[in-house]
Amino acid sequence: MTRFRLTIEYDGRPFMGWQRQAHGPSVQGAIEAAAVRVTGEAVALHAAGRTDSGVHAEAMTAHCDIARPITAFRLMEALNALLRPDPVAILACEEVADDWHARFSCIRRRYVYRIANRRAPLALAAGRAWQVAAPLDAAAMHDAAQALVGRHDFTTFRSAHCQADSPLRTLERLDVVRHGAEIAVHAEARSFLHHQVRSMVGCLMLVGRGKWTAADLAAARDARNRDALGLNAPPDGLYFVGADYPA
Amino acid sequence: MTRFRLTIEYDGRPFMGWQRQAHGPSVQGAIEAAAVRVTGEAVALHAAGRTDSGVHAEAMTAHCDIARPITAFRLMEALNALLRPDPVAILACEEVADDWHARFSCIRRRYVYRIANRRAPLALAAGRAWQVAAPLDAAAMHDAAQALVGRHDFTTFRSAHCQADSPLRTLERLDVVRHGAEIAVHAEARSFLHHQVRSMVGCLMLVGRGKWTAADLAAARDARNRDALGLNAPPDGLYFVGADYPA
Repeated sequence: MTRFRLTIEYDGRPFMGWQRQAHGPSVQGAIEAAAVRVTGEAVALHAAGRTDSGVHAEAMTAHCDIARPITAFRLMEALNALLRPDPVAILACEEVADDWHARFSCIRRRYVYRIANRRAPLALAAGRAWQVAAPLDAAAMHDAAQALVGRHDFTTFRSAHCQADSPLRTLERLDVVRHGAEIAVHAEARSFLHHQVRSMVGCLMLVGRGKWTAADLAAARDARNRDALGLNAPPDGLYFVGADYPA
Repeated sequence: MTRFRLTIEYDGRPFMGWQRQAHGPSVQGAIEAAAVRVTGEAVALHAAGRTDSGVHAEAMTAHCDIARPITAFRLMEALNALLRPDPVAILACEEVADDWHARFSCIRRRYVYRIANRRAPLALAAGRAWQVAAPLDAAAMHDAAQALVGRHDFTTFRSAHCQADSPLRTLERLDVVRHGAEIAVHAEARSFLHHQVRSMVGCLMLVGRGKWTAADLAAARDARNRDALGLNAPPDGLYFVGADYPA
Protein backbone atom coordinates (compact mmCIF):
# COMPACT_ATOMS: atom_id res chain seq x y z
CA MET A 1 0.00 0.00 0.00
CA THR A 2 1.13 3.52 -0.76
CA ARG A 3 -0.23 6.47 1.16
CA PHE A 4 -1.04 9.60 -0.85
CA ARG A 5 -1.66 13.09 0.46
CA LEU A 6 -4.19 15.10 -1.54
CA THR A 7 -4.82 18.86 -1.55
CA ILE A 8 -8.41 19.51 -2.61
CA GLU A 9 -10.38 22.57 -3.73
CA TYR A 10 -14.17 22.49 -3.81
CA ASP A 11 -17.29 24.57 -4.05
CA GLY A 12 -19.51 23.29 -1.25
CA ARG A 13 -22.85 24.32 -2.74
CA PRO A 14 -23.90 21.10 -4.51
CA PHE A 15 -22.76 18.87 -1.64
CA MET A 16 -24.23 17.78 1.67
CA GLY A 17 -20.77 18.45 3.08
CA TRP A 18 -17.38 16.77 3.08
CA GLN A 19 -18.43 13.52 4.74
CA ARG A 20 -19.75 10.54 2.79
CA GLN A 21 -23.55 10.28 3.11
CA ALA A 22 -25.92 7.44 2.35
CA HIS A 23 -28.49 9.78 0.82
CA GLY A 24 -26.90 12.61 -1.09
CA PRO A 25 -23.74 13.90 -2.74
CA SER A 26 -20.63 14.58 -0.66
CA VAL A 27 -17.12 15.72 -1.55
CA GLN A 28 -15.61 12.62 0.06
CA GLY A 29 -18.04 10.37 -1.79
CA ALA A 30 -17.28 12.02 -5.15
CA ILE A 31 -13.51 11.59 -4.77
CA GLU A 32 -13.78 8.05 -3.40
CA ALA A 33 -16.02 7.05 -6.31
CA ALA A 34 -13.45 8.46 -8.74
CA ALA A 35 -10.64 6.66 -6.89
CA VAL A 36 -12.44 3.33 -7.19
CA ARG A 37 -12.67 3.84 -10.94
CA VAL A 38 -8.98 4.68 -11.16
CA THR A 39 -7.68 1.84 -9.00
CA GLY A 40 -10.32 -0.86 -9.03
CA GLU A 41 -10.08 -1.02 -5.25
CA ALA A 42 -12.12 0.42 -2.39
CA VAL A 43 -10.47 3.68 -1.34
CA ALA A 44 -11.21 5.50 1.93
CA LEU A 45 -10.31 9.19 2.32
CA HIS A 46 -9.34 10.74 5.65
CA ALA A 47 -9.52 14.54 5.81
CA ALA A 48 -8.10 17.22 8.09
CA GLY A 49 -11.58 18.64 8.54
CA ARG A 50 -15.19 17.77 7.82
CA THR A 51 -16.94 20.77 6.35
CA ASP A 52 -20.71 21.20 6.42
CA SER A 53 -23.09 21.51 3.50
CA GLY A 54 -22.41 24.70 1.55
CA VAL A 55 -18.96 25.25 3.08
CA HIS A 56 -16.08 25.58 0.59
CA ALA A 57 -12.40 24.64 0.56
CA GLU A 58 -9.46 26.34 -1.10
CA ALA A 59 -7.11 23.63 0.18
CA MET A 60 -8.54 20.73 2.15
CA THR A 61 -5.95 18.05 2.98
CA ALA A 62 -6.80 14.35 2.92
CA HIS A 63 -4.99 11.04 2.53
CA CYS A 64 -5.76 7.57 1.17
CA ASP A 65 -3.99 4.24 0.78
CA ILE A 66 -3.78 2.57 -2.61
CA ALA A 67 -2.43 -0.91 -3.32
CA ARG A 68 -2.18 -0.73 -7.10
CA PRO A 69 1.09 0.80 -8.30
CA ILE A 70 0.41 4.33 -9.51
CA THR A 71 2.40 7.57 -9.41
CA ALA A 72 1.10 10.57 -7.49
CA PHE A 73 0.92 12.60 -10.71
CA ARG A 74 -1.05 9.93 -12.56
CA LEU A 75 -3.45 9.55 -9.62
CA MET A 76 -4.07 13.31 -9.52
CA GLU A 77 -4.65 13.53 -13.27
CA ALA A 78 -6.98 10.53 -13.32
CA LEU A 79 -9.03 11.82 -10.37
CA ASN A 80 -9.37 15.26 -11.93
CA ALA A 81 -10.48 13.76 -15.25
CA LEU A 82 -13.15 11.67 -13.52
CA LEU A 83 -14.34 14.39 -11.13
CA ARG A 84 -15.55 16.66 -13.93
CA PRO A 85 -18.02 18.28 -13.93
CA ASP A 86 -18.27 18.21 -10.13
CA PRO A 87 -16.75 21.40 -8.63
CA VAL A 88 -13.95 19.43 -6.98
CA ALA A 89 -10.30 19.62 -8.03
CA ILE A 90 -7.17 17.87 -6.79
CA LEU A 91 -4.59 20.66 -6.59
CA ALA A 92 -1.67 18.49 -5.46
CA CYS A 93 -0.87 14.85 -4.75
CA GLU A 94 2.24 13.34 -3.20
CA GLU A 95 3.39 10.12 -1.57
CA VAL A 96 3.74 10.30 2.21
CA ALA A 97 4.94 7.96 4.95
CA ASP A 98 2.59 5.19 6.08
CA ASP A 99 2.18 6.80 9.50
CA TRP A 100 1.33 10.26 8.17
CA HIS A 101 -2.33 11.06 8.84
CA ALA A 102 -4.28 13.97 7.37
CA ARG A 103 -6.45 14.27 10.48
CA PHE A 104 -4.27 13.09 13.37
CA SER A 105 -0.96 14.57 12.18
CA CYS A 106 -2.57 17.99 11.61
CA ILE A 107 -1.35 20.64 14.01
CA ARG A 108 -3.37 23.62 12.72
CA ARG A 109 -6.56 24.21 10.74
CA ARG A 110 -7.09 27.54 8.99
CA TYR A 111 -10.42 29.02 7.90
CA VAL A 112 -11.47 32.26 6.26
CA TYR A 113 -15.03 33.57 6.53
CA ARG A 114 -16.02 36.12 3.87
CA ILE A 115 -18.67 38.77 4.51
CA ALA A 116 -19.91 40.99 1.68
CA ASN A 117 -20.87 44.16 3.53
CA ARG A 118 -23.13 45.76 0.95
CA ARG A 119 -26.75 46.47 0.30
CA ALA A 120 -26.99 44.85 -3.15
CA PRO A 121 -27.54 41.11 -3.46
CA LEU A 122 -24.53 39.10 -4.60
CA ALA A 123 -24.39 38.32 -8.29
CA LEU A 124 -20.76 37.19 -8.64
CA ALA A 125 -20.35 35.87 -5.09
CA ALA A 126 -23.80 34.31 -4.61
CA GLY A 127 -23.44 31.32 -2.28
CA ARG A 128 -19.80 32.24 -1.74
CA ALA A 129 -20.02 34.99 0.87
CA TRP A 130 -22.44 36.19 3.55
CA GLN A 131 -24.18 39.33 2.41
CA VAL A 132 -24.77 41.75 5.30
CA ALA A 133 -26.50 44.94 4.25
CA ALA A 134 -26.11 46.93 7.47
CA PRO A 135 -22.78 48.78 7.79
CA LEU A 136 -20.32 46.80 9.92
CA ASP A 137 -17.52 48.24 12.06
CA ALA A 138 -14.73 45.79 11.21
CA ALA A 139 -12.29 47.38 13.67
CA ALA A 140 -14.77 46.87 16.52
CA MET A 141 -15.27 43.27 15.38
CA HIS A 142 -11.53 42.67 15.39
CA ASP A 143 -11.06 44.17 18.84
CA ALA A 144 -13.94 42.17 20.32
CA ALA A 145 -12.70 38.96 18.63
CA GLN A 146 -9.52 39.01 20.69
CA ALA A 147 -11.56 37.92 23.74
CA LEU A 148 -12.00 34.54 22.01
CA VAL A 149 -8.30 34.00 21.27
CA GLY A 150 -6.59 31.63 23.68
CA ARG A 151 -7.78 28.55 25.58
CA HIS A 152 -11.50 28.71 26.39
CA ASP A 153 -14.59 26.60 26.87
CA PHE A 154 -16.41 27.24 23.57
CA THR A 155 -19.72 25.58 24.52
CA THR A 156 -21.61 28.72 23.46
CA PHE A 157 -20.10 28.49 19.98
CA ARG A 158 -20.62 24.74 19.53
CA SER A 159 -23.37 22.97 17.62
CA ALA A 160 -25.76 20.77 19.62
CA HIS A 161 -24.61 18.00 17.27
CA CYS A 162 -20.92 18.45 18.05
CA GLN A 163 -19.32 15.09 18.86
CA ALA A 164 -16.09 16.34 20.42
CA ASP A 165 -15.33 15.02 23.92
CA SER A 166 -14.39 18.43 25.27
CA PRO A 167 -15.60 21.97 24.55
CA LEU A 168 -12.12 23.31 25.37
CA ARG A 169 -10.20 24.63 22.40
CA THR A 170 -7.22 26.93 21.94
CA LEU A 171 -7.96 29.57 19.33
CA GLU A 172 -4.66 30.85 17.93
CA ARG A 173 -5.96 33.61 15.69
CA LEU A 174 -9.21 35.48 15.04
CA ASP A 175 -8.52 38.49 12.86
CA VAL A 176 -11.10 40.66 11.15
CA VAL A 177 -9.83 42.55 8.10
CA ARG A 178 -11.77 44.84 5.75
CA HIS A 179 -10.86 45.33 2.07
CA GLY A 180 -13.45 47.68 0.60
CA ALA A 181 -16.86 46.06 0.94
CA GLU A 182 -15.39 42.64 1.79
CA ILE A 183 -14.68 41.68 5.38
CA ALA A 184 -12.56 38.56 5.95
CA VAL A 185 -12.44 36.77 9.29
CA HIS A 186 -9.30 34.63 9.67
CA ALA A 187 -9.53 31.82 12.23
CA GLU A 188 -6.74 29.40 13.18
CA ALA A 189 -6.53 26.64 15.79
CA ARG A 190 -5.22 23.12 16.24
CA SER A 191 -8.86 22.04 16.00
CA PHE A 192 -12.32 23.55 16.03
CA LEU A 193 -15.68 22.45 17.40
CA HIS A 194 -18.61 21.85 15.07
CA HIS A 195 -20.00 25.21 13.88
CA GLN A 196 -17.42 27.09 15.95
CA VAL A 197 -16.22 29.44 13.21
CA ARG A 198 -19.72 30.19 11.96
CA SER A 199 -20.95 30.79 15.52
CA MET A 200 -18.07 33.13 16.34
CA VAL A 201 -18.62 35.04 13.08
CA GLY A 202 -22.35 35.34 13.72
CA CYS A 203 -21.68 36.99 17.08
CA LEU A 204 -18.95 39.20 15.63
CA MET A 205 -21.47 40.44 13.08
CA LEU A 206 -23.68 41.60 15.98
CA VAL A 207 -20.68 43.50 17.35
CA GLY A 208 -20.05 45.03 13.91
CA ARG A 209 -23.63 46.26 13.74
CA GLY A 210 -23.38 47.76 17.21
CA LYS A 211 -26.01 45.39 18.63
CA TRP A 212 -23.43 43.73 20.88
CA THR A 213 -20.48 45.27 22.71
CA ALA A 214 -17.15 43.54 23.17
CA ALA A 215 -18.31 42.86 26.74
CA ASP A 216 -21.42 41.10 25.41
CA LEU A 217 -19.22 38.80 23.35
CA ALA A 218 -17.04 37.99 26.35
CA ALA A 219 -20.18 37.35 28.41
CA ALA A 220 -21.48 34.96 25.74
CA ARG A 221 -18.16 33.11 25.92
CA ASP A 222 -18.35 32.93 29.74
CA ALA A 223 -21.96 31.72 29.67
CA ARG A 224 -20.76 28.37 28.26
CA ASN A 225 -24.31 27.86 27.06
CA ARG A 226 -25.55 27.47 23.49
CA ASP A 227 -28.55 29.63 24.39
CA ALA A 228 -26.17 32.59 24.80
CA LEU A 229 -25.25 32.41 21.11
CA GLY A 230 -26.28 35.53 19.22
CA LEU A 231 -26.34 34.13 15.70
CA ASN A 232 -24.87 31.31 13.64
CA ALA A 233 -23.52 32.64 10.33
CA PRO A 234 -24.61 30.81 7.15
CA PRO A 235 -22.24 28.32 5.49
CA ASP A 236 -21.89 30.41 2.29
CA GLY A 237 -18.98 32.52 3.51
CA LEU A 238 -16.87 29.78 5.09
CA TYR A 239 -13.72 28.41 3.43
CA PHE A 240 -11.31 25.80 4.74
CA VAL A 241 -8.07 27.37 3.50
CA GLY A 242 -5.35 25.13 4.87
CA ALA A 243 -4.12 22.40 7.18
CA ASP A 244 -0.63 22.56 8.69
CA TYR A 245 1.62 19.63 9.61
CA PRO A 246 4.98 19.28 11.37
CA ALA A 247 7.86 19.91 8.97
CA MET B 1 -39.10 61.52 -17.55
CA THR B 2 -36.23 61.02 -15.17
CA ARG B 3 -32.96 59.49 -16.34
CA PHE B 4 -31.32 56.99 -13.98
CA ARG B 5 -27.76 55.73 -14.10
CA LEU B 6 -27.36 52.11 -12.95
CA THR B 7 -24.19 50.25 -11.93
CA ILE B 8 -24.69 46.54 -12.52
CA GLU B 9 -22.87 43.38 -11.46
CA TYR B 10 -23.58 40.09 -13.20
CA ASP B 11 -22.36 36.56 -13.73
CA GLY B 12 -22.52 36.05 -17.49
CA ARG B 13 -22.83 32.28 -17.49
CA PRO B 14 -26.62 31.85 -17.69
CA PHE B 15 -27.04 34.63 -20.26
CA MET B 16 -26.66 34.91 -24.02
CA GLY B 17 -24.89 38.18 -23.30
CA TRP B 18 -25.82 41.71 -22.30
CA GLN B 19 -28.02 42.49 -25.29
CA ARG B 20 -31.73 41.68 -25.38
CA GLN B 21 -32.40 38.59 -27.51
CA ALA B 22 -35.61 37.25 -28.99
CA HIS B 23 -34.68 33.67 -28.14
CA GLY B 24 -32.86 33.40 -24.84
CA PRO B 25 -32.03 35.13 -21.58
CA SER B 26 -29.98 38.32 -21.56
CA VAL B 27 -28.87 40.66 -18.81
CA GLN B 28 -30.56 43.62 -20.49
CA GLY B 29 -33.76 41.62 -20.92
CA ALA B 30 -33.77 40.53 -17.27
CA ILE B 31 -33.38 44.09 -15.97
CA GLU B 32 -35.87 45.57 -18.43
CA ALA B 33 -38.46 42.94 -17.48
CA ALA B 34 -37.97 43.83 -13.82
CA ALA B 35 -38.23 47.55 -14.62
CA VAL B 36 -41.54 47.03 -16.40
CA ARG B 37 -42.89 45.32 -13.29
CA VAL B 38 -41.67 48.18 -11.09
CA THR B 39 -42.91 51.06 -13.23
CA GLY B 40 -45.70 49.69 -15.39
CA GLU B 41 -44.04 51.28 -18.40
CA ALA B 42 -41.76 50.01 -21.16
CA VAL B 43 -38.18 50.70 -20.10
CA ALA B 44 -35.17 50.56 -22.43
CA LEU B 45 -31.66 50.20 -21.04
CA HIS B 46 -28.59 51.69 -22.73
CA ALA B 47 -25.25 50.27 -21.61
CA ALA B 48 -21.63 51.39 -21.86
CA GLY B 49 -20.72 48.01 -23.34
CA ARG B 50 -22.40 44.93 -24.76
CA THR B 51 -20.74 41.85 -23.33
CA ASP B 52 -20.91 38.43 -25.01
CA SER B 53 -22.39 35.24 -23.64
CA GLY B 54 -20.42 34.04 -20.62
CA VAL B 55 -18.69 37.40 -20.04
CA HIS B 56 -19.12 38.90 -16.57
CA ALA B 57 -19.37 42.42 -15.14
CA GLU B 58 -18.21 43.80 -11.83
CA ALA B 59 -19.59 47.21 -12.71
CA MET B 60 -21.42 47.70 -16.00
CA THR B 61 -22.94 51.15 -16.41
CA ALA B 62 -26.33 51.68 -18.05
CA HIS B 63 -29.11 54.26 -18.07
CA CYS B 64 -32.87 54.30 -18.55
CA ASP B 65 -35.68 56.86 -18.56
CA ILE B 66 -38.69 56.44 -16.31
CA ALA B 67 -41.83 58.58 -16.32
CA ARG B 68 -43.40 57.39 -13.08
CA PRO B 69 -42.12 59.28 -10.03
CA ILE B 70 -39.72 57.04 -8.14
CA THR B 71 -36.56 57.67 -6.15
CA ALA B 72 -33.26 56.18 -7.25
CA PHE B 73 -33.03 54.19 -4.03
CA ARG B 74 -36.52 52.76 -4.39
CA LEU B 75 -35.86 51.85 -8.03
CA MET B 76 -32.64 50.02 -7.08
CA GLU B 77 -34.30 48.11 -4.23
CA ALA B 78 -37.29 47.11 -6.34
CA LEU B 79 -35.12 45.94 -9.24
CA ASN B 80 -32.90 43.88 -6.93
CA ALA B 81 -35.92 42.27 -5.30
CA LEU B 82 -37.37 41.29 -8.68
CA LEU B 83 -34.07 40.16 -10.21
CA ARG B 84 -33.59 37.34 -7.71
CA PRO B 85 -32.58 34.61 -8.29
CA ASP B 86 -30.88 35.77 -11.51
CA PRO B 87 -27.19 36.52 -10.88
CA VAL B 88 -27.69 40.23 -11.62
CA ALA B 89 -27.44 42.96 -8.98
CA ILE B 90 -27.88 46.72 -9.14
CA LEU B 91 -24.95 48.07 -7.10
CA ALA B 92 -25.85 51.74 -7.41
CA CYS B 93 -28.55 53.94 -8.88
CA GLU B 94 -28.65 57.72 -9.23
CA GLU B 95 -30.51 60.41 -11.13
CA VAL B 96 -28.53 61.99 -13.96
CA ALA B 97 -29.09 64.79 -16.44
CA ASP B 98 -31.34 64.11 -19.43
CA ASP B 99 -28.42 64.42 -21.83
CA TRP B 100 -26.15 62.02 -19.93
CA HIS B 101 -25.73 58.79 -21.93
CA ALA B 102 -24.18 55.56 -20.62
CA ARG B 103 -22.81 54.69 -24.05
CA PHE B 104 -22.14 58.00 -25.78
CA SER B 105 -20.89 59.94 -22.75
CA CYS B 106 -18.44 57.17 -21.82
CA ILE B 107 -14.81 58.15 -22.26
CA ARG B 108 -13.15 54.91 -21.11
CA ARG B 109 -14.07 51.24 -20.81
CA ARG B 110 -12.07 48.99 -18.48
CA TYR B 111 -11.84 45.20 -18.62
CA VAL B 112 -9.94 42.58 -16.66
CA TYR B 113 -9.24 39.14 -18.08
CA ARG B 114 -8.41 36.46 -15.48
CA ILE B 115 -6.23 33.46 -16.33
CA ALA B 116 -5.82 30.61 -13.81
CA ASN B 117 -2.36 29.33 -14.66
CA ARG B 118 -2.53 25.91 -13.06
CA ARG B 119 -2.78 22.27 -13.98
CA ALA B 120 -5.84 21.41 -11.87
CA PRO B 121 -9.32 22.12 -13.19
CA LEU B 122 -11.14 25.04 -11.58
CA ALA B 123 -13.53 24.13 -8.78
CA LEU B 124 -14.11 27.55 -7.19
CA ALA B 125 -13.50 29.61 -10.35
CA ALA B 126 -15.18 27.32 -12.91
CA GLY B 127 -16.63 29.50 -15.68
CA ARG B 128 -15.02 32.53 -14.07
CA ALA B 129 -11.44 32.31 -15.34
CA TRP B 130 -9.53 30.74 -18.23
CA GLN B 131 -7.59 27.73 -16.99
CA VAL B 132 -4.24 27.41 -18.77
CA ALA B 133 -2.21 24.42 -17.61
CA ALA B 134 1.08 25.21 -19.33
CA PRO B 135 3.35 27.57 -17.37
CA LEU B 136 3.02 31.15 -18.62
CA ASP B 137 5.72 33.84 -18.55
CA ALA B 138 3.64 36.81 -17.41
CA ALA B 139 6.54 39.25 -17.70
CA ALA B 140 7.05 38.27 -21.36
CA MET B 141 3.32 38.69 -21.94
CA HIS B 142 3.36 42.15 -20.39
CA ASP B 143 6.38 43.26 -22.44
CA ALA B 144 4.88 41.98 -25.70
CA ALA B 145 1.51 43.56 -24.88
CA GLN B 146 3.00 47.05 -25.04
CA ALA B 147 3.15 46.72 -28.85
CA LEU B 148 -0.65 46.89 -28.85
CA VAL B 149 -0.89 50.02 -26.70
CA GLY B 150 -1.56 53.19 -28.69
CA ARG B 151 -3.53 53.88 -31.87
CA HIS B 152 -3.59 50.90 -34.21
CA ASP B 153 -5.67 49.12 -36.81
CA PHE B 154 -6.95 46.15 -34.75
CA THR B 155 -8.46 44.19 -37.67
CA THR B 156 -6.52 41.08 -36.59
CA PHE B 157 -8.14 41.24 -33.14
CA ARG B 158 -11.67 41.92 -34.34
CA SER B 159 -14.53 39.48 -34.71
CA ALA B 160 -15.87 38.87 -38.22
CA HIS B 161 -19.22 40.00 -36.76
CA CYS B 162 -17.89 43.33 -35.50
CA GLN B 163 -20.17 46.17 -36.61
CA ALA B 164 -17.85 49.09 -35.90
CA ASP B 165 -17.25 51.44 -38.83
CA SER B 166 -13.50 51.55 -38.30
CA PRO B 167 -10.94 49.01 -37.05
CA LEU B 168 -8.86 51.86 -35.60
CA ARG B 169 -8.80 52.03 -31.82
CA THR B 170 -6.55 53.65 -29.23
CA LEU B 171 -5.59 51.17 -26.54
CA GLU B 172 -4.64 53.12 -23.41
CA ARG B 173 -3.50 50.24 -21.22
CA LEU B 174 -2.68 46.54 -21.57
CA ASP B 175 -0.96 45.33 -18.41
CA VAL B 176 -0.29 41.71 -17.47
CA VAL B 177 0.12 41.10 -13.73
CA ARG B 178 0.70 37.79 -11.95
CA HIS B 179 -0.44 37.11 -8.36
CA GLY B 180 0.50 33.51 -7.56
CA ALA B 181 -1.29 31.24 -10.00
CA GLU B 182 -3.61 34.01 -11.22
CA ILE B 183 -2.67 36.23 -14.12
CA ALA B 184 -4.78 39.34 -14.67
CA VAL B 185 -4.75 41.25 -17.95
CA HIS B 186 -5.94 44.85 -17.55
CA ALA B 187 -7.23 46.53 -20.73
CA GLU B 188 -8.44 50.12 -21.03
CA ALA B 189 -9.59 52.17 -24.02
CA ARG B 190 -12.24 54.70 -25.01
CA SER B 191 -13.85 51.83 -26.90
CA PHE B 192 -13.06 48.30 -28.03
CA LEU B 193 -13.89 46.27 -31.11
CA HIS B 194 -15.98 43.10 -30.80
CA HIS B 195 -13.83 40.31 -29.32
CA GLN B 196 -10.82 42.63 -29.11
CA VAL B 197 -9.87 41.89 -25.50
CA ARG B 198 -10.35 38.14 -25.87
CA SER B 199 -8.36 38.11 -29.10
CA MET B 200 -5.49 40.11 -27.59
CA VAL B 201 -5.45 37.82 -24.53
CA GLY B 202 -5.46 34.69 -26.70
CA CYS B 203 -2.35 35.88 -28.53
CA LEU B 204 -0.68 36.99 -25.30
CA MET B 205 -1.20 33.45 -23.98
CA LEU B 206 0.82 32.16 -26.94
CA VAL B 207 3.58 34.60 -25.98
CA GLY B 208 3.40 33.39 -22.36
CA ARG B 209 3.83 29.80 -23.47
CA GLY B 210 6.81 30.73 -25.63
CA LYS B 211 5.01 29.77 -28.85
CA TRP B 212 5.02 33.37 -30.05
CA THR B 213 7.68 36.05 -29.62
CA ALA B 214 6.91 39.71 -29.03
CA ALA B 215 7.81 40.20 -32.70
CA ASP B 216 5.18 37.63 -33.70
CA LEU B 217 2.55 39.60 -31.81
CA ALA B 218 3.60 42.85 -33.50
CA ALA B 219 3.53 41.08 -36.88
CA ALA B 220 -0.01 39.83 -36.18
CA ARG B 221 -1.00 43.42 -35.41
CA ASP B 222 0.58 44.66 -38.64
CA ALA B 223 -1.05 41.93 -40.72
CA ARG B 224 -4.43 43.63 -40.19
CA ASN B 225 -6.01 40.31 -41.07
CA ARG B 226 -8.21 38.11 -38.90
CA ASP B 227 -6.38 35.05 -40.26
CA ALA B 228 -3.25 36.25 -38.43
CA LEU B 229 -5.00 35.79 -35.07
CA GLY B 230 -3.34 33.15 -32.94
CA LEU B 231 -6.22 32.34 -30.61
CA ASN B 232 -9.40 33.89 -29.23
CA ALA B 233 -9.59 33.43 -25.45
CA PRO B 234 -12.84 31.98 -24.05
CA PRO B 235 -15.41 34.32 -22.45
CA ASP B 236 -15.03 32.76 -18.97
CA GLY B 237 -12.18 35.00 -17.85
CA LEU B 238 -13.50 38.34 -19.10
CA TYR B 239 -14.97 40.96 -16.76
CA PHE B 240 -16.25 44.44 -17.60
CA VAL B 241 -14.95 46.27 -14.54
CA GLY B 242 -15.81 49.88 -15.17
CA ALA B 243 -16.92 52.72 -17.42
CA ASP B 244 -15.53 56.23 -16.93
CA TYR B 245 -17.29 59.52 -17.65
CA PRO B 246 -16.26 63.18 -17.63
CA ALA B 247 -16.36 64.62 -14.11
